[in-house]
Amino acid sequence: MSESRFSEIINGDRENEQIVFENNKFIVLTDRYRKTSVGSICLVIPKKHRQNLLELTESESKEIIPIINLISKSMQKAYKCNGIRVWTAVNKEAGQSIFHCHVHILPCKSIKDRLIANFPGIYDLKRLVTGKRELSKSLNYRLAEKLRIEINTYAQHNL
Amino acid sequence: MSESRFSEIINGDRENEQIVFENNKFIVLTDRYRKTSVGSICLVIPKKHRQNLLELTESESKEIIPIINLISKSMQKAYKCNGIRVWTAVNKEAGQSIFHCHVHILPCKSIKDRLIANFPGIYDLKRLVTGKRELSKSLNYRLAEKLRIEINTYAQHNL
Repeated sequence: MSESRFSEIINGDRENEQIVFENNKFIVLTDRYRKTSVGSICLVIPKKHRQNLLELTESESKEIIPIINLISKSMQKAYKCNGIRVWTAVNKEAGQSIFHCHVHILPCKSIKDRLIANFPGIYDLKRLVTGKRELSKSLNYRLAEKLRIEINTYAQHNL
Repeated sequence: MSESRFSEIINGDRENEQIVFENNKFIVLTDRYRKTSVGSICLVIPKKHRQNLLELTESESKEIIPIINLISKSMQKAYKCNGIRVWTAVNKEAGQSIFHCHVHILPCKSIKDRLIANFPGIYDLKRLVTGKRELSKSLNYRLAEKLRIEINTYAQHNL
């Protein structure tokens, strides 16, 4: 998924993606290449092109944490898990591989989840060995749908 | 460093700590037990007790990213590095070990930095084997001082 892939999704090419949240500034989608043992990994992405977290505008900076928290709390309910890991990389030296800002949110139950979470390359290697390129469409859909239900419920009561 | 240790620091017991930034809602200190190959690891901590990121108030949520970005940009200058990793864990299943919200910011140059960054336990094990309990006071001070200079310069021009 290159930088331009994120732009394509934002601009409407979404048939292979599961969008779980969207407003005027951000879009949140599931990672269709990876999951944890618990459920979908989500990526929170500003719609305007910002190379990394440090390039967010003042208003984007103010609005991103409430969205991260909405997704995290909904994950806890949708996937019946306590653990959530949140991370982002700034520049390739820190592990950034797509140069459009994205914050990862991961439901975690085990150290393996945290390892996959923080080193997607390990998961990619497994995919390379097994030849399995991405999650099945139906699995990605089912996991995203569970999450969307909780996000909508939460948003109705809190936003 | 237990939960109460964070509270003690916030309440004024700071002689063993290096504080690099503070305002009415947050305090930022260096991790005196660990560093990356590049420089100090910083912890951004709300002064009021919040168990994790999901418990931040609305105003704390709005203010934390600008502080994370201030610290990150200052690290890039102080330690002459591009890579910055930002992460936080919610609950023990995700690797949280101190139950007072803290966001880690780490200057990174290599995969080893990212490994240490995300799995502090590995670094702790090394400390256990070598018997070295924490960074030397002078090293912790020197690394923090480099960072404080850049934070002050940045703050004067941008805040």
